[in-house]
Amino acid sequence: MSLHFGIIGAGNGGHAFAAYLGMKEVEVNWFDIDPKVVEVINDQGGVYVDGQLNGFAPVRNATTDMKELIDSSDVLMVVAPANAHRIIARNCAPYLKDDQIVILNPGSTGGALEFHQELKKSGCSAEIILAETQSLLFACRLKKAGHVSIFGVKRYLPFATFPSNKIESVYELLSPVFPEFRKGENVLEISLGNVNAILHPAPSLFNLPQVEKQIPFLHYWEGITGGISILLDKMDEERLEIGKAYQLSLPSTKDLLRSFYGVEGDTMEELVQNNQAYKTITGANSFSSRYFTEDIPMGLIPMQELARAANVPTPTIDAIIQLSSSIFKDDFKSSARTLDRLGLSQMTLHEILQYVEHGEAQKIINNQ
Amino acid sequence: MSLHFGIIGAGNGGHAFAAYLGMKEVEVNWFDIDPKVVEVINDQGGVYVDGQLNGFAPVRNATTDMKELIDSSDVLMVVAPANAHRIIARNCAPYLKDDQIVILNPGSTGGALEFHQELKKSGCSAEIILAETQSLLFACRLKKAGHVSIFGVKRYLPFATFPSNKIESVYELLSPVFPEFRKGENVLEISLGNVNAILHPAPSLFNLPQVEKQIPFLHYWEGITGGISILLDKMDEERLEIGKAYQLSLPSTKDLLRSFYGVEGDTMEELVQNNQAYKTITGANSFSSRYFTEDIPMGLIPMQELARAANVPTPTIDAIIQLSSSIFKDDFKSSARTLDRLGLSQMTLHEILQYVEHGEAQKIINNQ
Repeated sequence: MSLHFGIIGAGNGGHAFAAYLGMKEVEVNWFDIDPKVVEVINDQGGVYVDGQLNGFAPVRNATTDMKELIDSSDVLMVVAPANAHRIIARNCAPYLKDDQIVILNPGSTGGALEFHQELKKSGCSAEIILAETQSLLFACRLKKAGHVSIFGVKRYLPFATFPSNKIESVYELLSPVFPEFRKGENVLEISLGNVNAILHPAPSLFNLPQVEKQIPFLHYWEGITGGISILLDKMDEERLEIGKAYQLSLPSTKDLLRSFYGVEGDTMEELVQNNQAYKTITGANSFSSRYFTEDIPMGLIPMQELARAANVPTPTIDAIIQLSSSIFKDDFKSSARTLDRLGLSQMTLHEILQYVEHGEAQKIINNQ
Repeated sequence: MSLHFGIIGAGNGGHAFAAYLGMKEVEVNWFDIDPKVVEVINDQGGVYVDGQLNGFAPVRNATTDMKELIDSSDVLMVVAPANAHRIIARNCAPYLKDDQIVILNPGSTGGALEFHQELKKSGCSAEIILAETQSLLFACRLKKAGHVSIFGVKRYLPFATFPSNKIESVYELLSPVFPEFRKGENVLEISLGNVNAILHPAPSLFNLPQVEKQIPFLHYWEGITGGISILLDKMDEERLEIGKAYQLSLPSTKDLLRSFYGVEGDTMEELVQNNQAYKTITGANSFSSRYFTEDIPMGLIPMQELARAANVPTPTIDAIIQLSSSIFKDDFKSSARTLDRLGLSQMTLHEILQYVEHGEAQKIINNQ
């Protein structure tokens, strides 16, 4: 059986998935809200790609009609900013059917759990399987609608399903298409592995005058000096402690930098400064940068919330959130992934662990 | 009767006081730990001054001997970084006599209270009167030992005594020499009026890469952008709330900028950017800048401690302290002015108010 893929979102990442899948002769259907982009793709009959992949990748059909997309897809690849996951869930809810797979690429922190809640609230009762990846599979940039550059494909990428007891079947289906995918423990591991939450907001805050005056700076190479790297280490230690509370042995951000990029160094500062892949990555240049608007409410705050549920103190992460809230005149409470938004409020740590493994089934058992 | 003044400290401020007093033909004795500076002053017989004051100001005697200074002085002007107050108190303790006046110029936050505690611990039982000013009377810079430039003398400067019921007698004695001095309510008002705690550490943190790379920047004009000014407003609101809890109606930092410098503007950003006096003030250029090492442990932390004693939440101030502690790998607990160091631990808010008004006498009454 060959899988039919449906991609939701035609930004950088969506284009890269279309190219990657099309070049593998996998059937690709595609949804975007922008009719102009949809038209370009249908006119071309696919996407052009250069860089690590080169050529033309066919796309069966692009559409602005979510029902049409979902009806023609076995696996839905959501490739959108985490802030959009909730509205996408609402838009998908009426059309999803049993056994469809929905993968958030990536989930940021709490993506699959929030998506599930939103489906439930929207009255979706289909028995789908949700999944989230730890980051985007590609380093890529959109040149224009219908043309993407792929600079790199990650050698491996952890992902997990919700509930996690579905991982084997999903892995079996997907690994022929995505040999990079590696089975994670559960969505908590993947969500707490979202190191963008560590690496993006704090350095952006500590370079705020540059950000506000739109003075370009290299996020890593110029923006992360010794003091900031000490702070990032503290935040990361807190993240690892949250993981421990949930029985997860998470790799440190420093270890991830070592294994992802092969860089050497002892301190965060050394690892960041020695990483050639960071050579051209520029910092935030406004308050609406995703380094703030995505990585705080969809990264740091759900980490803080998971910490609270497990009684793990996170003073440094708390302080970054507090200062951001002050500066943004927004406590992010209306937008952020709180325990309530993740469907975890009122649960004990044990119940959360059971829930991520078994899903709603476990809730029913608990309530009996 | 003419007062004999003893100045402790021969930095920028100490030199300015020597010049100011000497030019008024007030008798000046002077202490510094550095024998070279003491020698220069004694050789010259005084200090040269230029700027707003111009000429030569005689100094009766400079010495490295604290006993000699104290024995020849009625009023001791302590002009040193707040971090040095404790050791100065220890050094003064054996020699102080009843009715001597010790003024901390300025006290930062909690200066007089800490000085008193340190005298007590050192076994000093003399009935002295302590006082603290809200900031340094002068804008000044030392050109070299024995020569100072005074750019400006504040039109008025709030000060208070500890205990505050001594203010009238001290004011009567000092106002002929310092017509700028204005009577404050008590040392809490003066201590909470230390707006350096608001204006210095946070902008330094938010410009950390500049600080660490020693890239010169203007602390106010370049370092305080819109987002940071919003944050400073939040911190300032918290400071005012602490004041309210202690029955004080403190002026906001914005109002102080308006009244001290005559600048106009609605927001903190406007007031800072419109203030010509800030034109040349450069930012911190290392972790050992007083903007961190003095204004956090001797400013923000005692404010936070006073807030705790009064059950006032200070989330923004707390976050700045937390991040500084992480970055400095130091919780400042060994150096900072905690309630314990201020002699206020275990006291109710009412007891604190009684104590700052009546001093130890009140403690004895309480304990009876």
